[in-house]
Amino acid sequence: MAEPTGSIVIEAVEPELDGTGRFAIKRIVGESVVVQADVFKEGHDILVAVLQWRHVAPAASTDGKWSEAPMQPLGNDRFSAEFPLSHLGRYAYTIEAWSDAFRTWVSELERKVAAGHSVRSELVEGAALLRQAALRASAQSPDAKRLLAAEQALLAGTPEAAVAAALEPGLSDLASRYPDRTHATRYLREVPVYADRPRAVFGAWYEFFPRSTGTDGKPGTFADAETLLPYIESLGFDIVYLPPIHPIGRAGRKGPNNVVSTNPDDLGSPWAIGSREGGHKSIHPALGTMKDFAHFKEAAEGRGLEVALDLAFQCSPDHPYIREHPEWFSWRPDGTLKTAENPPKRYDDIVNFDFLGPARESLWAELKSIVLFWIGEGVRIFRVDNPHTKPLPFWIWLIRQIQDAHPDVSFLAEAFTRPKMMKALAKAGFTQSYTYFTWRVFKQEIQDYLVELTQGPVAEYMRGNLWPNTPDILSDFLQQGGLPAFRIRLALAATLSPSYGIYSGYEWCEARAIPQTEEYLDSEKYQLRPWEIGSPDNISAYVSRINQIRRGNRSLQLYRNLRFYQADNDQVLFYGKKCPDGSNPLLIAVSLDPFSTQEVVLQIPLGDLGLGAEETFQVHELMKDGRALWRGPRAQVTLTPENPAAIWSVHRFARRENSFDYFD
Amino acid sequence: MAEPTGSIVIEAVEPELDGTGRFAIKRIVGESVVVQADVFKEGHDILVAVLQWRHVAPAASTDGKWSEAPMQPLGNDRFSAEFPLSHLGRYAYTIEAWSDAFRTWVSELERKVAAGHSVRSELVEGAALLRQAALRASAQSPDAKRLLAAEQALLAGTPEAAVAAALEPGLSDLASRYPDRTHATRYLREVPVYADRPRAVFGAWYEFFPRSTGTDGKPGTFADAETLLPYIESLGFDIVYLPPIHPIGRAGRKGPNNVVSTNPDDLGSPWAIGSREGGHKSIHPALGTMKDFAHFKEAAEGRGLEVALDLAFQCSPDHPYIREHPEWFSWRPDGTLKTAENPPKRYDDIVNFDFLGPARESLWAELKSIVLFWIGEGVRIFRVDNPHTKPLPFWIWLIRQIQDAHPDVSFLAEAFTRPKMMKALAKAGFTQSYTYFTWRVFKQEIQDYLVELTQGPVAEYMRGNLWPNTPDILSDFLQQGGLPAFRIRLALAATLSPSYGIYSGYEWCEARAIPQTEEYLDSEKYQLRPWEIGSPDNISAYVSRINQIRRGNRSLQLYRNLRFYQADNDQVLFYGKKCPDGSNPLLIAVSLDPFSTQEVVLQIPLGDLGLGAEETFQVHELMKDGRALWRGPRAQVTLTPENPAAIWSVHRFARRENSFDYFD
Repeated sequence: MAEPTGSIVIEAVEPELDGTGRFAIKRIVGESVVVQADVFKEGHDILVAVLQWRHVAPAASTDGKWSEAPMQPLGNDRFSAEFPLSHLGRYAYTIEAWSDAFRTWVSELERKVAAGHSVRSELVEGAALLRQAALRASAQSPDAKRLLAAEQALLAGTPEAAVAAALEPGLSDLASRYPDRTHATRYLREVPVYADRPRAVFGAWYEFFPRSTGTDGKPGTFADAETLLPYIESLGFDIVYLPPIHPIGRAGRKGPNNVVSTNPDDLGSPWAIGSREGGHKSIHPALGTMKDFAHFKEAAEGRGLEVALDLAFQCSPDHPYIREHPEWFSWRPDGTLKTAENPPKRYDDIVNFDFLGPARESLWAELKSIVLFWIGEGVRIFRVDNPHTKPLPFWIWLIRQIQDAHPDVSFLAEAFTRPKMMKALAKAGFTQSYTYFTWRVFKQEIQDYLVELTQGPVAEYMRGNLWPNTPDILSDFLQQGGLPAFRIRLALAATLSPSYGIYSGYEWCEARAIPQTEEYLDSEKYQLRPWEIGSPDNISAYVSRINQIRRGNRSLQLYRNLRFYQADNDQVLFYGKKCPDGSNPLLIAVSLDPFSTQEVVLQIPLGDLGLGAEETFQVHELMKDGRALWRGPRAQVTLTPENPAAIWSVHRFARRENSFDYFD
Repeated sequence: MAEPTGSIVIEAVEPELDGTGRFAIKRIVGESVVVQADVFKEGHDILVAVLQWRHVAPAASTDGKWSEAPMQPLGNDRFSAEFPLSHLGRYAYTIEAWSDAFRTWVSELERKVAAGHSVRSELVEGAALLRQAALRASAQSPDAKRLLAAEQALLAGTPEAAVAAALEPGLSDLASRYPDRTHATRYLREVPVYADRPRAVFGAWYEFFPRSTGTDGKPGTFADAETLLPYIESLGFDIVYLPPIHPIGRAGRKGPNNVVSTNPDDLGSPWAIGSREGGHKSIHPALGTMKDFAHFKEAAEGRGLEVALDLAFQCSPDHPYIREHPEWFSWRPDGTLKTAENPPKRYDDIVNFDFLGPARESLWAELKSIVLFWIGEGVRIFRVDNPHTKPLPFWIWLIRQIQDAHPDVSFLAEAFTRPKMMKALAKAGFTQSYTYFTWRVFKQEIQDYLVELTQGPVAEYMRGNLWPNTPDILSDFLQQGGLPAFRIRLALAATLSPSYGIYSGYEWCEARAIPQTEEYLDSEKYQLRPWEIGSPDNISAYVSRINQIRRGNRSLQLYRNLRFYQADNDQVLFYGKKCPDGSNPLLIAVSLDPFSTQEVVLQIPLGDLGLGAEETFQVHELMKDGRALWRGPRAQVTLTPENPAAIWSVHRFARRENSFDYFD
């Protein structure tokens, strides 16, 4: 027989992922979580539903106690409430509901009295409910005394006086404060929520290879890289992300353009981690020492730049792990080590761990210690290489382990993989994810994809970090479109999502590829490449301007507030962002055509902006700092290859003549 | 650390309700269940997914063993398979998946060979995989021998010969037949499915009060009721449903039009069950004996009519239970019994059980014994009175208890309640549900609601039984629209859902109501009402015709095959039905206007019908048995108050001149 725990149904709880209770929805500390649920039972009782929540981790910063707030009925058996995320880390919420016995009784009493029925025995019943509530209140408390006095009023005096006492305003509220929750129903799961720091959502990333910052053809050091920080700061970025900074293996080392090296001077790929000089917890000797890294990091932080490192959980065949822990790797029947491959591609310089092999416990513990090591060095953001080639259970475990102690640590998944695996990694706990934005270049495909990313169920757990280029991807659009293409893709990435990034070279519009591929020609992955900061073909000022606008407009710092609007030109994308309270409304139009000027009529979303059809309003175009007065539902604008993007801050004229006292 | 059970994700499994594993989706025995799921893991392995299912209950008719079928990849990590429901009752299905080691190896080998790589050590690896597969096959079996021979072919001979042996067609299939499932991932739930008999979906119900079948003003008996069976058979119904047939209490008895009775001759409401003569397992003495009931039931079955009874789990104050089991009821503090009420309505003749009270175990057992009692008398269909006033856990328990032993038993929920409770009762296990169809009379509201009922997620577990009238509901539309209104509502109910019903009097268009209410004037619920079969205002022939068409067209016997189409007139509903294999295509147009003739242009769904734009086809209108040739995407038709509904059976001309051999 079913458990005697009441018969209330609590279902259709939102937000919740998959209904398994395993994966957290993601929010930012300081935000509130709005929770809704269907709550109902048989019959006609008035129900009370409460939202309960608690901060679960880190253990050190939580007392684990549940807080509680009443849920408001929205009609049709739906209830809503919200709770604040005042700490970083993991929360859980659930819902409890019970019948409000006294309020139900009052409601029936009112209707019976109105229908002229005798309510003698009902009054006895109501009095008993008040006595029970009094017993649940603190003995001798004012509330208990008031409840007992009301009980007497129901039992004594005329029926009319008793009914009046029962219906007295406030009595239901008082009695409901001491409910009988013996048979309350609790939702079957505690729903996890993760509260990240704001940087998990808002940040402009700049990726560069520190070894390319040297002068006179020599490999750069952290000290060299430090000299470029003022430049990166001037571009307006928030995060500098470094590819792996560890010793590079010799075995199978790659030379320029990914050929197997024959030249002892070749530097190899930074992702071929590990040599006699050390592994994932060491720094490549040519870059400097751990102290040099710390100095670089502090210098960056002094300029408002946070340093993100690469987590590439793989080894060069020379990695010390292979000698010390052969049990962590896969060996062929002939005794040779399996190298990484995705045929016909081979990575002779890379060996994968056997993540689910017999030695997984010690392997996972070691990999966790790598993350903790760099956390110890002050790193809080990790870009994770190829997470989709490692098992999901590992990521679920690792991210949980790390964040339960260090809730300000973020993981960006380089999840260039199949759609469902990309989402599964986000559910598994990755803070952010790379996306297919890199290849979406036409209007409808951008719009459809960004709606899916920012407004669908996916937006509860996955945050797209948009990259126009990476060391692995120089897209056709950038190869073919010249400087305007670089402006367009930057403007899109920087305004469609609060998180975006570029790989250095983008700002001087590096577009030379190995023919018929997306690979950079003479890629920095395998050789030194001098920086071309002073290149005449650069869009540095454009980059600075956009990053400055991002910092000055809170709407651009939020993820789920993107809305697309109508424009009558298939080469022009038109969208808007505003804050949840309606402030800082922005309209953005970006031409997708790097070759020609585009005229477009925009359909102004007057309703979303709270503007009347006849109202004149000011738009402040932020890219060129121009102002105009617009009115009505249409605006015609021109976008050129030189200025493909317009960002209008919309300002109402708050005061009109009839706002003044003397108007009339 | 996570369980070492593999790292495959199995999610987005369909069909499944709520992701709790508690509630069954509903199907009909003989149907197949098509299952889809996302199945993927890290990396590039080729995965095998299998659907597993078993018949769970009744225990007597199942061996509980799992069957298994491979799932087919649909692309984008989605897999599909189906399984047959060959028995009545409860099934469960789940999914298991694993990496196909040998096939993955072959796929990589092919690409390495194509890229010109040496595959010496790969061949050793492949040979080991074949040996392991051989060890899993029966020793000395032909398969084991073939696998060991292939192993030798990979290890001996030239690399070219070894590769050719590895790629030999059929070897992958053979090796995959003996997979290593040690680390297979199993879906976290066994998803329940319930297979009903066909009558659970297809049936026309006829409700009548047996006591109204008497002659000369005397209450009717089962013997009297029996004489009307030929008439009901002639109307074409499948089920006769009788309101409660038990002894009626004296206390608080109701007289005509629901006033408290002052006349000792008043008969009372059949829902006030229980008196000195007995309770829920007894028959009202005025109707006859248990033997008379059995005779009536057999006579009905002889005419193809199944008898459905009312399950009203409530008591008159005179019910023997109250004396024998006071612990099953709620008592007021003053010692009086609580009667049923929904203020300002009071039911002085009815007392509710205390379903969740301290004596619930014995109460639930007794209520179950009532159902089993009538099952023992051969009843298999129960219409359940007001299920939404009883706790859901009770229904979940009761229906499961009954159906696990008697899988052919159906429960129709009289769930005229809030939308979410109506759905919750269906999830709880009710076979069918009353719906809001009774009040949906205009085009858009009918269309929206029927789409929700038959095509949304609700259709997986709820089957709407459409009733134009009930003893409690004589709708405004019927009160005001005359005979045409009765034709319209009947045609809609009988063609929108395979399950529908009318309450007797409908066919002679009884439309007299208590003013400003939906209550019948002089309702049979409280007094005798002579039948008016011979009334000149009757639509009996219309009812017969529609039921005959329902029996002759399988499309009208299915629930989820309803599709709405465009018609250019807001007073005309246009829809179609066909079988899953495309056979028996019907087009149906119903005028919703009981007062005037309506002209309408129908947009013929040529695509759905598999018709070419230029193709001429025959339509056979079944209501008036007329035929016509139509062609192209539009048809103009006229619907009148006398003939408001048209049902066209669509026939292609299967053969044309170029079907003949001598055409050319």
